[in-house]
Amino acid sequence: MKHVLLILLFISSPAYARSDALPSWNDGPTKTAIITFVQQAVDEQSEHYVPVAERIAVFDNDGTLMGEKPVFLQGNFLAFLAESAMDTNPTYAQDADFKALVERENWQRYFETTPWEKTLKIYAATHTGMTQTAFTKMVKDYLRVHEQYRRTVYQPMRELLDYLRANGFKPYIVTGSENQFVRAFSEEYFGIPPEQVIGTSWKTEVQEVDGRIEIKRLPEFSFYNDKKSKVEAIDHYIGRVPVFAAGNDGNAGDIYMLRYATQDKERPGFGLIVAHDDGKREAAYTDKDGATLAAARTYGWTVAHVADDWKTIFPAVSNRNSVPAAR
Amino acid sequence: MKHVLLILLFISSPAYARSDALPSWNDGPTKTAIITFVQQAVDEQSEHYVPVAERIAVFDNDGTLMGEKPVFLQGNFLAFLAESAMDTNPTYAQDADFKALVERENWQRYFETTPWEKTLKIYAATHTGMTQTAFTKMVKDYLRVHEQYRRTVYQPMRELLDYLRANGFKPYIVTGSENQFVRAFSEEYFGIPPEQVIGTSWKTEVQEVDGRIEIKRLPEFSFYNDKKSKVEAIDHYIGRVPVFAAGNDGNAGDIYMLRYATQDKERPGFGLIVAHDDGKREAAYTDKDGATLAAARTYGWTVAHVADDWKTIFPAVSNRNSVPAAR
Repeated sequence: MKHVLLILLFISSPAYARSDALPSWNDGPTKTAIITFVQQAVDEQSEHYVPVAERIAVFDNDGTLMGEKPVFLQGNFLAFLAESAMDTNPTYAQDADFKALVERENWQRYFETTPWEKTLKIYAATHTGMTQTAFTKMVKDYLRVHEQYRRTVYQPMRELLDYLRANGFKPYIVTGSENQFVRAFSEEYFGIPPEQVIGTSWKTEVQEVDGRIEIKRLPEFSFYNDKKSKVEAIDHYIGRVPVFAAGNDGNAGDIYMLRYATQDKERPGFGLIVAHDDGKREAAYTDKDGATLAAARTYGWTVAHVADDWKTIFPAVSNRNSVPAAR
Repeated sequence: MKHVLLILLFISSPAYARSDALPSWNDGPTKTAIITFVQQAVDEQSEHYVPVAERIAVFDNDGTLMGEKPVFLQGNFLAFLAESAMDTNPTYAQDADFKALVERENWQRYFETTPWEKTLKIYAATHTGMTQTAFTKMVKDYLRVHEQYRRTVYQPMRELLDYLRANGFKPYIVTGSENQFVRAFSEEYFGIPPEQVIGTSWKTEVQEVDGRIEIKRLPEFSFYNDKKSKVEAIDHYIGRVPVFAAGNDGNAGDIYMLRYATQDKERPGFGLIVAHDDGKREAAYTDKDGATLAAARTYGWTVAHVADDWKTIFPAVSNRNSVPAAR
């Protein structure tokens, strides 16, 4: 098995070097830095060689692999579920917090300015109480109807995932969104299987229903995956320090994760920050205090400027077949 | 990548069918049941075909992949650490619970009869407070000195892991022992990488030490992985229902996990129970109430009887090179 994999790398690497593995990226220092890191990682003669088993890559989801403006995907799903709940439940229909969410006034600012307890209450009311199987079906049904979200995937990052996989890397999503939510589309959107999705999670409970084991979702978080917690989650779920970590400027959520992946100077580690500076083609936003870009300078991470580095941002067609299958 | 993997399977499967992939298993219904399941799982023409991405296999560790009598590996490690702690700390040296553990009177029964709070107190005192990196080094140092534990790995199960991997399965360890503890040897003993180990875990805390991110272990469990919890853990970490699950008779710890993997009749699912009925070559023990073997009959799981089904139990030499590398 090991030998066959080595042959595979031998075959695929030159092919990728000859053609352009990252066609949606403009030529320039960012693209060169990525390719140089990967070429050295797979080159046994390089001092920056990384054994296959250690080629762990971690990606933030919202704002890194897909657009998060005006509102990230799970925020949209939350509002959709809240509207459904209000249609059938008068208590929710009259609840000021539900109303504030579904009115979508200052939609983009809602999640930035609303106290977390208010939003969490609506999450708990709409996202828990059912089985995991039922919840996954809810998400998949929603995404089937709302095909437009397939178009919010960043094409350059999809190519980067493919490029890393072709060179033996194992990419994980490490997200503040919920693990079970993201797992419902990670394979189709990004070719990332459910076991490589780490996110915020609810407590669960095993129940027996007609002699069958079901997993019920409880209205309490078991893990909230953001900032420092992402480091704990990587350690907890993967048990290895990644050699590649990608996040985005915007809410300082990925600084710890990138620091963790790049702090050991005696081993290779690549940090990539997506900087959203293209208000014409996407959305222009940045950390209020400039923390992420400052960290990128301090720790030597590569910054992908959407305006300059990305030739195209979104896929030309929302073609599900263009997304590679897992593995 | 997908095509190459299919070629790989095409090459390797016939080779395994021709030679004997499970030389330490005696011919008989157990071995035949395993091989039939795997051959159908990889056969696209079979109604029991399983797509590669869904070939998730879960294995209990103690008593399933390696011997757990007289005492499971982490229990031995605990006593070792307790002795060290008593040597340097008078409070521990005089503690009745520490004394009871390290005296090893009725060593086999200690973990079965001692109230859990007493043992947990010693676990917390010896297993937490340090960084994850420091803890892993402690485990590896211990296993380097105590080479004999390499000999407690079940050779037939190691072959089974190899056989499953060669046929595209991804095996996980799902254990009541601690994830970080088992990760320190899972790759070397079983070829299972750390990201495929799910176990009991301690709470952690991210700390900054001289500008470096460290993960400190806290003296409180974040997850205790046994019985029903194993189902939640599989859902939480893997997000798929396994198609192959292996546990052992002895403490009823794996019944839920196997039920979960085998309850959907419209999809393939294989349950394997190791029954410890060979007091001469290993240790003879069983559930007090017969629950595991009763469940095996009820749910149609295959039972591997150590006495009849295993030609050899332990590896002939404790040769680390004979353990396949991960992947």
